[in-house]
Amino acid sequence: MARRPDPEKRDRIVRTTRDLLRRRGVAGTTMLEVVAEAGASRGSLYHYFPGGRSEMVADAVRGAVEEYSAGVELLTTMDPVDAIPLIVEVWRAEAEASGYTAGCPVVAAALGGETEPAAREIAGRAFASWTDSIARMLSGAGVPAARVEPLATLALAAIEGAVVIALAQRSSEPLERVSRELVALVEAERIR
Amino acid sequence: MARRPDPEKRDRIVRTTRDLLRRRGVAGTTMLEVVAEAGASRGSLYHYFPGGRSEMVADAVRGAVEEYSAGVELLTTMDPVDAIPLIVEVWRAEAEASGYTAGCPVVAAALGGETEPAAREIAGRAFASWTDSIARMLSGAGVPAARVEPLATLALAAIEGAVVIALAQRSSEPLERVSRELVALVEAERIR
Repeated sequence: MARRPDPEKRDRIVRTTRDLLRRRGVAGTTMLEVVAEAGASRGSLYHYFPGGRSEMVADAVRGAVEEYSAGVELLTTMDPVDAIPLIVEVWRAEAEASGYTAGCPVVAAALGGETEPAAREIAGRAFASWTDSIARMLSGAGVPAARVEPLATLALAAIEGAVVIALAQRSSEPLERVSRELVALVEAERIR
Repeated sequence: MARRPDPEKRDRIVRTTRDLLRRRGVAGTTMLEVVAEAGASRGSLYHYFPGGRSEMVADAVRGAVEEYSAGVELLTTMDPVDAIPLIVEVWRAEAEASGYTAGCPVVAAALGGETEPAAREIAGRAFASWTDSIARMLSGAGVPAARVEPLATLALAAIEGAVVIALAQRSSEPLERVSRELVALVEAERIR
């Protein structure tokens, strides 16, 4: 009997994969672990992801990027002085909720390029697109054109780096400090 | 016959572990992989590391931190305007040499806290100590006391984040941009 497609089951596998990526990275996201954590059979994994782990990981990263990108787009309609603390607050809450064990799945993909180059590729494009979104936000807030791209790159790098340091120190302080610094930078650079 | 301690062999195991951490993260650094890549037997791994993987990983992270800390200490005797591009240059060269597959082993430890909390602890202390070193450097360069700690946190977070983005995009550009921004920030904040 042919298996009927079950979008809910597929979705559960993708969410489990994302969660594992955040806590264990690419190398820790094996078919076996996903089977165990999603309560799915190995057969159903290959049914939904005929390309195996590479397809499953790429799909999970793509899904995370789509979700985060929607959030970033929404935030970047705000003033950066309000948006930056909000972005940081989202990460602070997620880090705390996981007991400082779960990072950004896109960072996990960025670090897993040796075994999963397709997922890394998606991560690279996501960082480029988020930099563009932040740049548009800064431009709209009156930051001079020549300063928009470099400042957006600094902001994204500092937030991603602060998440890593916050996890290591099990403290939200690095995130809060970086948020205050970035807000002060934007305030200083915008034309009034 | 009792095994004679062989510091070279032990050292090779530690270096292989560090290399695996950089390319595969904590979850990808298994005893089996270390055995395969170091050309050591499983028995010799347990001989040198009776605590198994946790001891091996903690040791590798500790070794990396000691080595990097010596470098950071040396760099922070320089003017930040010269030191920041040098730190970034070291990371650029390492990322390129590995084909953009190898990140910072301390970041790997920071992200592996769920399975290896002792290694994460070492990472958290390392980030604190590097922030202090950068802060001392900034202080020596004439950055006002109240601005030294926040700016040091921003610099460390931005550099660690830029390494991740550079790996994802297989490009040194994010690192170079962040370096230029940090140098400009220090120049703007120092008292002349």
